[in-house]
Amino acid sequence: MYSENLVWPKDLIDLRGLSAFHLTAILDAAENFREVSEREIKKVPTLRGKLVVFFFHENSTRTRLSFEVAAKRLSADTLSLSSSGSSMAKGETLLDTAKNIEAMSPDALVIRHSASGAAQFLGDRLSCPVLNAGDGAHAHPTQALLDLLTIRRHKGRIQGLKVAIIGDIAHSRVARSNMIGLSALGAQVRVAGPPSMMVGGLDDEYGVKVFSRPEPALEGADVIIMLRIQLERQSGQLFPGAREYARVYGLNPRRLSLAHPEAIVLHPGPVNQGVEMSPQVYQCPQSVILDQVSNGVAVRMALLYLLVDNPERHKA
Amino acid sequence: MYSENLVWPKDLIDLRGLSAFHLTAILDAAENFREVSEREIKKVPTLRGKLVVFFFHENSTRTRLSFEVAAKRLSADTLSLSSSGSSMAKGETLLDTAKNIEAMSPDALVIRHSASGAAQFLGDRLSCPVLNAGDGAHAHPTQALLDLLTIRRHKGRIQGLKVAIIGDIAHSRVARSNMIGLSALGAQVRVAGPPSMMVGGLDDEYGVKVFSRPEPALEGADVIIMLRIQLERQSGQLFPGAREYARVYGLNPRRLSLAHPEAIVLHPGPVNQGVEMSPQVYQCPQSVILDQVSNGVAVRMALLYLLVDNPERHKA
Amino acid sequence: MYSENLVWPKDLIDLRGLSAFHLTAILDAAENFREVSEREIKKVPTLRGKLVVFFFHENSTRTRLSFEVAAKRLSADTLSLSSSGSSMAKGETLLDTAKNIEAMSPDALVIRHSASGAAQFLGDRLSCPVLNAGDGAHAHPTQALLDLLTIRRHKGRIQGLKVAIIGDIAHSRVARSNMIGLSALGAQVRVAGPPSMMVGGLDDEYGVKVFSRPEPALEGADVIIMLRIQLERQSGQLFPGAREYARVYGLNPRRLSLAHPEAIVLHPGPVNQGVEMSPQVYQCPQSVILDQVSNGVAVRMALLYLLVDNPERHKA
Repeated sequence: MYSENLVWPKDLIDLRGLSAFHLTAILDAAENFREVSEREIKKVPTLRGKLVVFFFHENSTRTRLSFEVAAKRLSADTLSLSSSGSSMAKGETLLDTAKNIEAMSPDALVIRHSASGAAQFLGDRLSCPVLNAGDGAHAHPTQALLDLLTIRRHKGRIQGLKVAIIGDIAHSRVARSNMIGLSALGAQVRVAGPPSMMVGGLDDEYGVKVFSRPEPALEGADVIIMLRIQLERQSGQLFPGAREYARVYGLNPRRLSLAHPEAIVLHPGPVNQGVEMSPQVYQCPQSVILDQVSNGVAVRMALLYLLVDNPERHKA
Repeated sequence: MYSENLVWPKDLIDLRGLSAFHLTAILDAAENFREVSEREIKKVPTLRGKLVVFFFHENSTRTRLSFEVAAKRLSADTLSLSSSGSSMAKGETLLDTAKNIEAMSPDALVIRHSASGAAQFLGDRLSCPVLNAGDGAHAHPTQALLDLLTIRRHKGRIQGLKVAIIGDIAHSRVARSNMIGLSALGAQVRVAGPPSMMVGGLDDEYGVKVFSRPEPALEGADVIIMLRIQLERQSGQLFPGAREYARVYGLNPRRLSLAHPEAIVLHPGPVNQGVEMSPQVYQCPQSVILDQVSNGVAVRMALLYLLVDNPERHKA
Repeated sequence: MYSENLVWPKDLIDLRGLSAFHLTAILDAAENFREVSEREIKKVPTLRGKLVVFFFHENSTRTRLSFEVAAKRLSADTLSLSSSGSSMAKGETLLDTAKNIEAMSPDALVIRHSASGAAQFLGDRLSCPVLNAGDGAHAHPTQALLDLLTIRRHKGRIQGLKVAIIGDIAHSRVARSNMIGLSALGAQVRVAGPPSMMVGGLDDEYGVKVFSRPEPALEGADVIIMLRIQLERQSGQLFPGAREYARVYGLNPRRLSLAHPEAIVLHPGPVNQGVEMSPQVYQCPQSVILDQVSNGVAVRMALLYLLVDNPERHKA
């Protein structure tokens, strides 16, 4: 399915602009790169002499690490820039900082930012490829792609699968990117969450089925994606409704039993055990959360390869 | 003009010790390294196996990034050490920390520090090359060198140019290093700034013309260097006189029109738009601020090459 | 003495599990790696394509830098993860974070943590080698090994040496690891410290002689290891008894004269001059504190080489 003839956009901002062919090509490339991380020498010279700059304005462990591992396994040089310790602290605007980075001739800029639209904003104004590592509640395309890869590896396909996404749909860039990617590849997506974490129009906008309670969404599901509750945004306190949330929306063995017996459970991490899911579910064989992490490196290698390695490919 | 026979000092502390031949040799080497950043594979093996340690005690985006990019493009290994998270937080002195770094056999130490004289202090006590990335109000030689390269590339020469430096002369290491470098290469330097940002004796010490108002300094200037107002040192508040400063000293189209029609505008960045210069000037074709950034990488590659690569060169 | 036939444990948690043969083999390997840091090109391809992750939950300059230099001189890729800026700040547990790192297929994890037992805990649960860079008051095996190397290089042997360890024995992981390593290699260890910094049973547990005053411990000593007083844990104030501590336990020329005339003085750094030792002692020729730093790089290269390079070696 992978086609050398596909034309790639300059940037990866969200999954909206990518066809099913593009998505499949990324997953196929990632499949090949998975093998690199299993070698004795986990490194290929693909991006030797290229510079990938990480520009992270929000805390991140796994996304930043995963991108860094991906870049290093491709032999790229990497540089990290966080808001603190940078000129951003001197009141410089995002664009100024980015323009300055660009003047140093990087080969790609990976950005995470709390503002929706930040990645697009830079992509439109910089000549180098911009990869969105999460912007506000807008998009987190590499997370969705690693979820797609994880699903395809476990289920052999995406087409026709019943996928339940449970949690804070309204504020989740992971949910948004997954709804786009899963729908594009032919999955049937159902979403469920508390009224305060849901927005109207999802059915029209993304072609998903919307439920207020998790049970009907889980019914017969092949794949369950549990979203993270941002407890740390509740001033460090377990937010008052955490126990209530767990009781009504948390994935426990009883709810899991509503799904297909071979359903797999995903979560973007880090998991709040006892909130989004019970420890039993977290540790059960159906949980593929650490596979997601491994697949994240492969997906990011694929994207860096496709967007950075071969500039002639980008005609868009 | 570049001469293999020049003897180089061990350290780069300020530009005072460097002859016009040395300065020109650095610019010539930087000119060659600019080309590396324009290649498909932006890397040369010059410093393979060498270790460059960055020891930054003040916030910095562009200087640190620029040095890191420069070191990586020369294939050096790099290590970063900031004050926070280091033993400095345990009350260790600067010299103790530096001696400990030295015991790990680095090939160069790049230091930024808030205290004037910190770079010299370490250079005198360490056996490895020490490169000053800015020390207090004393010197910022790599900034001055990248300004010189930017000027030479745009004007074809330094000799005989009229250069206006406007702003907080008293507290600016950028101004000091530029006054030395520009004078050494035969430019006519004029400085202007508010009385509270000026010190006496600059004419005698640096051979520059001193003005209290910007207009006479700008008159017929070929090059305008606007200095940064340290707004963030005013406890995060726009200091009361920011508007007043902009009105009297800020570079706007009207003031710019006093200079030579092909005058170029430099700024060490980050620019406070609306303070040091108006947005129109910032974005006009005469503004070469992003060229400065690109040239910064080339100048730092040249310096690392000249001071680190070839120890036999250093007889001084 | 170095034997290719030794079986190595997967992890380096403390020195307890290592025989005198193992300890000697590490020192022998380190001796070879010291030479690498003295070359013009300070780099060997031993760990090319391997990924070493640094997972530091406590401030550290020299240990982190030393490990990073060691990894880079072996051509490994490195990644750093500190608690701040990581998912740990999102309430993720140590194990969750470590499992996530593991899912990215690192070749070694180097951990520093304030909790005793943290390194063992991870070593038992991860498949990759875990190297302890200091855990609580439990162990700091690489520090003890670099001390052993420093002693052996200066004294030609460990066996039969009289070694005095002075200071906060109770809270010192450096003291614990040194007592184990020194005893295993046949040194006679004496410890001394204030009653509040001493615990019972050290004589039985480690086979050391315990004194409350430093003088009898120093009497005829070949090696003196002064421990660091954690002044910064006393809320930034010089703790009330610092002067008193210096008077009774600090190493000054008079106390040093009690030791063997060629005794060497070690300290894990950073030294509080005037507290643990006087400036005269710190700077005297018997002080080998910077040698320790150089030897630290060599010891860590040896350990990464022995634990990472050759997985077949690890049958334990």
